[in-house]
Amino acid sequence: PGTKLPRVGTTIFTVMSQLAAEHGAVNLGQGFPDFDVPPRLVDGLDRAMRAGHNQYAPMTGVAALREAIADKTAALYGHRPDPDAEVTVTSGATEAIFNAIHAVVRAGDDVVVLDPAYDCYEPAIDLAGARAVHVPLDPATFAPDWARVRAAIGPKTRMLIVNTPHNPSGAMLSADDMAELASIVQDTGVWLVSDEVYEHIVFDGARHESALRYPELRERAFVVSSFGKTYHCTGWKVGYCIAPPGLSLEFRKVHQYNVFCTFAPAQHAFADMLREEPEHHLGLGAFYQAKRDAFREQLLGTKLEPLPVPGGYFQLVDYSAVSDLVDTEFCRWLTIEHGVASIPLSPFYESPPPGQRLARLCFAKAQPTLDAAIERLTRL
Amino acid sequence: PGTKLPRVGTTIFTVMSQLAAEHGAVNLGQGFPDFDVPPRLVDGLDRAMRAGHNQYAPMTGVAALREAIADKTAALYGHRPDPDAEVTVTSGATEAIFNAIHAVVRAGDDVVVLDPAYDCYEPAIDLAGARAVHVPLDPATFAPDWARVRAAIGPKTRMLIVNTPHNPSGAMLSADDMAELASIVQDTGVWLVSDEVYEHIVFDGARHESALRYPELRERAFVVSSFGKTYHCTGWKVGYCIAPPGLSLEFRKVHQYNVFCTFAPAQHAFADMLREEPEHHLGLGAFYQAKRDAFREQLLGTKLEPLPVPGGYFQLVDYSAVSDLVDTEFCRWLTIEHGVASIPLSPFYESPPPGQRLARLCFAKAQPTLDAAIERLTRL
Ligand SMILES: CSCCC(=O)C(=O)O
Ligand SMILES: CSCCC(=O)C(=O)O
Repeated sequence: PGTKLPRVGTTIFTVMSQLAAEHGAVNLGQGFPDFDVPPRLVDGLDRAMRAGHNQYAPMTGVAALREAIADKTAALYGHRPDPDAEVTVTSGATEAIFNAIHAVVRAGDDVVVLDPAYDCYEPAIDLAGARAVHVPLDPATFAPDWARVRAAIGPKTRMLIVNTPHNPSGAMLSADDMAELASIVQDTGVWLVSDEVYEHIVFDGARHESALRYPELRERAFVVSSFGKTYHCTGWKVGYCIAPPGLSLEFRKVHQYNVFCTFAPAQHAFADMLREEPEHHLGLGAFYQAKRDAFREQLLGTKLEPLPVPGGYFQLVDYSAVSDLVDTEFCRWLTIEHGVASIPLSPFYESPPPGQRLARLCFAKAQPTLDAAIERLTRL
Repeated sequence: PGTKLPRVGTTIFTVMSQLAAEHGAVNLGQGFPDFDVPPRLVDGLDRAMRAGHNQYAPMTGVAALREAIADKTAALYGHRPDPDAEVTVTSGATEAIFNAIHAVVRAGDDVVVLDPAYDCYEPAIDLAGARAVHVPLDPATFAPDWARVRAAIGPKTRMLIVNTPHNPSGAMLSADDMAELASIVQDTGVWLVSDEVYEHIVFDGARHESALRYPELRERAFVVSSFGKTYHCTGWKVGYCIAPPGLSLEFRKVHQYNVFCTFAPAQHAFADMLREEPEHHLGLGAFYQAKRDAFREQLLGTKLEPLPVPGGYFQLVDYSAVSDLVDTEFCRWLTIEHGVASIPLSPFYESPPPGQRLARLCFAKAQPTLDAAIERLTRL
């Protein structure tokens, strides 16, 4: 039988992690920390299990967690979503993005994505019977060209997906970007997905421009985040979606029949964590900025040219001084021959910029891991 | 904007659980145990977290768990699926069913479901742009009428969904049923979903007829199960799908971009549990049979007429001697006025049999809970 998703293979993250494992490479590919979750969170999850929170959570999420998310959102972005009508806990941000798309995108619709785009957007759009319309970000700065975005929006456009801090580039939308975005979508029927999973990992005093700060944006947005990056537990798969009541209603219809509800004990653990240590995420920028700075310093001793990193987990490097291979080949070669796994950028594009020689390195790693990688990269 | 799922409201399980909470009713509605998970499993999950298994699990599931599932399947059903190509761990059985439908069902297709049908099938079919074709089970025995099933299958039929032991009725498919099913689907392009989440909860020495026992069925089936019912942890949301390589490939494309992977520490805990206590599930039938028998005995003292329960969590009762209300009204009344929450059957039907007066009571409860319910039901 023909396949419904002919263009989907195994994600580049899995491919590179497997290759890294096969070749004993230092894995700076797939984005996950190799240090551990805060012990308080492990203790909290343990306590939740032993307190008997092992049966179905409410479909929308444990009430105390939705409250805590609303409080945190209010403190950060000056807007408190209604925890009952506007906050839904999901099995990771990926599920939230999938649900948001399936909640409102119909067969024949267009969805605008900005390339390079995180790889889960397009298959979900395809499955909904819609078409992804790709608008390139600036190849040097990864900033949106809003005139091109505006031009890409037509009568069939149902949704626009933005991502800040951006994966894979680390670029962040500015307040001016948010104003442009608002002016583009106002008076249209275009919904937004704002993928903000790296919201707390921002550097150099920059301010994360959540869509939740802007009434004109949040009234039409599914704002998606996750605890995986914030608490160093990408394998716990607890995320959430904040959206106005009407959109949340549609979102929940999908969530309800997709996974029904999310692992209950972790929800209690996050609710406790947010109450007991409400400042944890405020230290995250400084924590990762130190890693970024140390890693960039180390990269000066290699032939790899680091690009600026405003936020997130990832350092892009230009490898043109080392190799002329296209990025997928270069990343394979680097893994197999030099023992460092990275992620090529071309899988994030419909049409990668010709001649682009960039690889993504994850610096959300303990220093010995980064040291081992640098030692190998220095030999290039 | 119009809704994509105009017929979807909040599930009857959430509605009745909320009503039960509001009215302090004994909750025999939503199917979950009110006793706890085996301590070994809690300890195993705790150990997995403290051993650092807190980052992304492999997309297809932790290898040791897929191996353990394959071994268990071989021991039970005489067929060992390939853990790498045929077993995928999911965020509960609901996600597995959703993925299976989205993996192969296309806009314009028909999917045959047998009514009463578990409530997550049809919304997933709707979202895929397909149509659910409802074939009623026998209103007295809940056995399939295979002639009617055969007649419902046409050139547009892409999938047929079966469920044994059956929710809400507890009815089980027999070996003869499986032969009928095989003869119906052979030489067609119809895929199967076999929802077997109650596979270990079978009574009176009956044998669970997994689709995995039958080559003609398993070659075209997504067989779905879950650990939630087997280990008394419905809130842990770990399930799995066993399907031939080609179907698993399509299934995984959806899973990969729906949730990407499932809560990692629980996967390690289940892998350890299956290895250390491989007989746990063999005791489950006797454990629940004792509950069923005690509860049925107690029901003799009420005006509710219990139907036979071959398997599963649920006792259907005919309440015609008590009330003439339609089932949704009766179940509300019983919750509000008599403090016992149950589940009406009509939400499981496209067209409920006229005059049917059945409610579903969950006996997966500690004896004091069942005693409290019976005390109230005796007053009817
Ligand atoms: C879901 S695996 C990929 C993790 C991630 O976000 C990334 O590496 O970009
Ligand atoms: C997903 S909530 C419903 C649980 C269940 O399987 C049932 O009550 O039938």
